[in-house]
Amino acid sequence: MKEFDIIHRYFENVGPRRKDVILGVGDDCAIVQSRIEHQIVVSCDTLVEGTHFVADMPGEALAHKAVVANLSDLASMGAIPSWLTLAIVMPEGDEAWLEPFSNGLKSVCDYYHVQLIGGDTCKGDQVTLSITIAGYVPTGTALTRSGARPGDNIYVTGNLGDSALGLQCILGEHEFDADVTAQAIKAHYYPSPRVHAGQLLRGIASACLDISDGLASDLGHLLSSSKVGALLDVGALPLSDNLVKAVGEDNAREMALAGGEDYELLFTVPRSESAALDMAMSEAGVRYTCIGQVMSSPELTYELDGKRWHSEAKGYQHFE
Amino acid sequence: MKEFDIIHRYFENVGPRRKDVILGVGDDCAIVQSRIEHQIVVSCDTLVEGTHFVADMPGEALAHKAVVANLSDLASMGAIPSWLTLAIVMPEGDEAWLEPFSNGLKSVCDYYHVQLIGGDTCKGDQVTLSITIAGYVPTGTALTRSGARPGDNIYVTGNLGDSALGLQCILGEHEFDADVTAQAIKAHYYPSPRVHAGQLLRGIASACLDISDGLASDLGHLLSSSKVGALLDVGALPLSDNLVKAVGEDNAREMALAGGEDYELLFTVPRSESAALDMAMSEAGVRYTCIGQVMSSPELTYELDGKRWHSEAKGYQHFE
Repeated sequence: MKEFDIIHRYFENVGPRRKDVILGVGDDCAIVQSRIEHQIVVSCDTLVEGTHFVADMPGEALAHKAVVANLSDLASMGAIPSWLTLAIVMPEGDEAWLEPFSNGLKSVCDYYHVQLIGGDTCKGDQVTLSITIAGYVPTGTALTRSGARPGDNIYVTGNLGDSALGLQCILGEHEFDADVTAQAIKAHYYPSPRVHAGQLLRGIASACLDISDGLASDLGHLLSSSKVGALLDVGALPLSDNLVKAVGEDNAREMALAGGEDYELLFTVPRSESAALDMAMSEAGVRYTCIGQVMSSPELTYELDGKRWHSEAKGYQHFE
Repeated sequence: MKEFDIIHRYFENVGPRRKDVILGVGDDCAIVQSRIEHQIVVSCDTLVEGTHFVADMPGEALAHKAVVANLSDLASMGAIPSWLTLAIVMPEGDEAWLEPFSNGLKSVCDYYHVQLIGGDTCKGDQVTLSITIAGYVPTGTALTRSGARPGDNIYVTGNLGDSALGLQCILGEHEFDADVTAQAIKAHYYPSPRVHAGQLLRGIASACLDISDGLASDLGHLLSSSKVGALLDVGALPLSDNLVKAVGEDNAREMALAGGEDYELLFTVPRSESAALDMAMSEAGVRYTCIGQVMSSPELTYELDGKRWHSEAKGYQHFE
């Protein structure tokens, strides 16, 4: 299949036809309506074959995960998703791969009401997906990394480390029983972005980001942006039964700290907002856990059962 | 160099600090102010090593061209550039390459007053650059491909085919004298997007796009979007003295029709707007040439000296 046929068949009319998208795929540019009294929130995330995902990752899961990684960035700012562009590089126009990929893309875009408005389809050796996503927030209400203050509590949504376990299963590094493996792979391939929870945290959280590189690394980003430190209670880290059953509690804690791609939200909340937080997370239907406190001295220290604890967790960085 | 060091050193604070960019590189997302009574215009273009550019293309030229390819899409809609995201995939964090690349990026962003607000930096085998760019237009005034009507004149800005000649020089396919070669390579590596001219064509042109795949191919897109045909006067194609000197008039015409990456504007104008067009192009300081007429029958036919003429030109498509 040739480029323009591929675009027509697999990438036109993906996702809902949003009323604020005046012109979608097919011209030199797309046209989107501005929103009065709102700001535009923009993020960009890329997945490269061999670096971010294995070559035989199912097309449907790959499309899901690429979009979720971007939706998760919008979630961490409290933004309402609106549109995305997708640049896709691949060795050949292979229909057996494009069909499930396009289906996965449609499902996730429909569910989160985000429209594919443009992109590019090119030939290259490695499959590479680059998405730029935009949403909006009422002016001045976006959550950032830099608002954490000493005394704020530190929270995460959901469980941590399951995606890292899934990756171990996919790479065949360890063997677990079939049920454990299936759950872990699902966590790795089909993560849920906390889009609704993020929006409900506006006006409550003092700082927020999503956990993509690993809790230890991402918390480091939040703390350095906010110019504060933290005391983290390792015993409080939310771990799934599946993860603890598979690797034991000690390993599970390390995986929760170092493992990336959980796409949970990590956020800080002043104590005065605790009741509002509880209502917001109940409304979102999302489990949340207090895992520590923001401190004024700029270190990140770990405690377990009231004693200092040491972690090697560093999180992922390219070119390291 | 590691990922976050690369971002900090080469990609933070690139381009002007625009007043409508509230938060740039460094958080999960960027935040941009909406513009009242304007629409957002968005485009996405990707360059892959080995497909779009040779491996030893200078970093400065590569950055320039990647941004220009995107600016040119905005120009074709008549949009005012505002911000861009850049996803860059490369084998290693090589400073000798990143330094000139970053300098080229800064120069072109400064000149066109467009701010780099986000992106991604990843490891992969081939250098791949994916840019999403956004600008704005007063609501309802964007130029599209679909407005050409029978009787409209067809115009192009500048000259055509020089970029294709430059590519032949770079690939060593032909040898020309040093002066010809230098001019042609400059046209290929440092094209000018017609940003100002595009803005001045709002309210004058009935349809517009930029020539990236080649005149024959891109005119085909415009005609099929507008559901019309055209009679093209091959003798009127604007050719540089350099191109004619290098390959002769006949080859020059074929290169003008088939060669891509000229980044000139191709547009149609109702006869009633001819005087306005002349004033607009004088103001932009851009040469423009009438190369044919829009016809109601949906074919694209070529004429030379009043006789039918045949072209093999098809333009570039991936996966062909």
